[in-house]
Amino acid sequence: MWSETEVTRKLGVQYPIIQAGMAGGPASPELAAAVSEAGGLGTLGAGYWTGEQLRDAVRTVRRLTDRPFAVNLFVPEPYEVSEERISRVQERMRRYRKELGLSSEPQFPKQFAPAFEEQMEVVLEERVPVLSFTFGKLGAEWMQALKGRDVVVIGTATTVREAVTLEESGVDMVVAQAFEAGGHRGTFLSRFDEALIGGMALIPAMVDAVRIPVIAAGGIMDGRGISAALTLGAQGVQLGTAFLTCRESGAHPLHQQAVLSATDESTTLTRAFSGKPARGIRNRFIEEMADVELPDYPVQNALTREIRQAAGKQGRSEFLSMWAGQGTRLSREMTAEALIQVLVKETEKAVSRLT
Amino acid sequence: MWSETEVTRKLGVQYPIIQAGMAGGPASPELAAAVSEAGGLGTLGAGYWTGEQLRDAVRTVRRLTDRPFAVNLFVPEPYEVSEERISRVQERMRRYRKELGLSSEPQFPKQFAPAFEEQMEVVLEERVPVLSFTFGKLGAEWMQALKGRDVVVIGTATTVREAVTLEESGVDMVVAQAFEAGGHRGTFLSRFDEALIGGMALIPAMVDAVRIPVIAAGGIMDGRGISAALTLGAQGVQLGTAFLTCRESGAHPLHQQAVLSATDESTTLTRAFSGKPARGIRNRFIEEMADVELPDYPVQNALTREIRQAAGKQGRSEFLSMWAGQGTRLSREMTAEALIQVLVKETEKAVSRLT
Repeated sequence: MWSETEVTRKLGVQYPIIQAGMAGGPASPELAAAVSEAGGLGTLGAGYWTGEQLRDAVRTVRRLTDRPFAVNLFVPEPYEVSEERISRVQERMRRYRKELGLSSEPQFPKQFAPAFEEQMEVVLEERVPVLSFTFGKLGAEWMQALKGRDVVVIGTATTVREAVTLEESGVDMVVAQAFEAGGHRGTFLSRFDEALIGGMALIPAMVDAVRIPVIAAGGIMDGRGISAALTLGAQGVQLGTAFLTCRESGAHPLHQQAVLSATDESTTLTRAFSGKPARGIRNRFIEEMADVELPDYPVQNALTREIRQAAGKQGRSEFLSMWAGQGTRLSREMTAEALIQVLVKETEKAVSRLT
Repeated sequence: MWSETEVTRKLGVQYPIIQAGMAGGPASPELAAAVSEAGGLGTLGAGYWTGEQLRDAVRTVRRLTDRPFAVNLFVPEPYEVSEERISRVQERMRRYRKELGLSSEPQFPKQFAPAFEEQMEVVLEERVPVLSFTFGKLGAEWMQALKGRDVVVIGTATTVREAVTLEESGVDMVVAQAFEAGGHRGTFLSRFDEALIGGMALIPAMVDAVRIPVIAAGGIMDGRGISAALTLGAQGVQLGTAFLTCRESGAHPLHQQAVLSATDESTTLTRAFSGKPARGIRNRFIEEMADVELPDYPVQNALTREIRQAAGKQGRSEFLSMWAGQGTRLSREMTAEALIQVLVKETEKAVSRLT
């Protein structure tokens, strides 16, 4: 039976289908709970949340379901704060601030990213069932603390080398984030542009190189994709874009609309919104910022926040970061429960058609 | 049964496995004949051949097998001959000519690419069973002439839009060339960098958009990849890199060795060798030429020919165009017959494991 894998056993879920931790809104408590309630693994996209926000979200999920769910975090990386790059990009973005009616002088953020320690303490205190993370690996002390509380730990790798490193660090499973995937690249050992590997090549190579289960991510939108990932050797799949257009998703309606009408040629990799390469739907901000030398992540992310928030309120999709993978042509609008049911039926059909 | 598809029926082959038309040596008559003899569809990589060379190759294949085979051609595109770019790149490449002991003044090629009409006439006169092509679509007159001789015609698409255009032009099947694929990008309707779509997203989207069979290409190296492509909806697969390291392949031994020892991070897209973006194993020539504004394809291809040929003779892999897809970690050294047999067994295993 295709749905019985090491991933379903370890996670205690019915189907090896994980909803990706789309930070910044889409992966809301409502979406996570709906996915878990329907038999998949819902994920809170907590990368940008404070400890307090995360705790509230965890409790909301627990009110809505008693099934397992995950929290997804961003592992902090060293970064430079270059005053010169900051003032150049601020200067350049002044035109957008004006268009959006924001003060010409932006607030200089007090903090570029939320405190990771604070987030981790909530994960441990609340005994979150599953922690997934991206942008690096966790130190031995965190890993020990997580194991001590029986938290299942899932790392993110964009290359075989990263998967091996994560396995050595003690994670229980690893997500193979292929080139097709939407949102931020999880690359942490290579130059990002040398770690862009399509799923057809990445998944089987990673499966051969590690003993822990591999979870395929990138471009998977329907049962055909799930069946393909499993036959490539993955023991589970992680879908972001497919869940982004669900009713319970916290994604901006314009973001959802853009995904629903996008083609296979609509997305691109950009550093414009956050300073870190991510795949999203091409728009004016991405195009006009393409030639600017940007501050590091998370500095640039903090610097564009006011613009993105104002654009959201004013319905200006040309300034929104509309993350999406390459599978947008197959996106659908329905509830998360209906989507999980459709995915399961389609996977069964795809599997039986082969034989 | 997974191996019975519209592709096997139309092509008259046992397995829906096509060997890609790797021009410039690898896709030799010996390789094509061995693949066809083993039940797949062998292909002559004729893109750079004169009509006469193509005729000789077709006759060699026919001496070795009476099974169907294909010829792969490059559809000519408009290009500019910029004297300025040519002299700048010649100036830049003088250092390599010196290292290789070539005269400092390169021969200015009389012709940048072989005559397409001449190649096509051989295809028609010899009644080649299958013609596959890339870089564009064929005009209505060619399509009519091919149909008149019962030639099965296969186009190459890197986007859904290109697949639809090819279907409208009358091709019998379309290759979905995903981001993972080695060698030249077949893109002809978009900017090449907006047509880089991973197989997990490209294959099902293309299958949904056309009525003709889709043949998946890019990163497929073993039975898991074949099974994945078929469950995504493809009715056949095209493998290049997997056949490049076969005994019968005409690839340079250093090229084969590089593929066998490459990792998932070894390849890149480059215009350095031909002026057209292609995926190959990163080497010194690619790295050092990255910042040069190059002449169009096929001008740059003609300008690097002497360097590549001398490098081949002298065993200098730093100047060879070592095309390869992203699946190199799974490459193997065996005969084409053995590879086909292994692929079939592995596909059966992958299919049965799902159910």
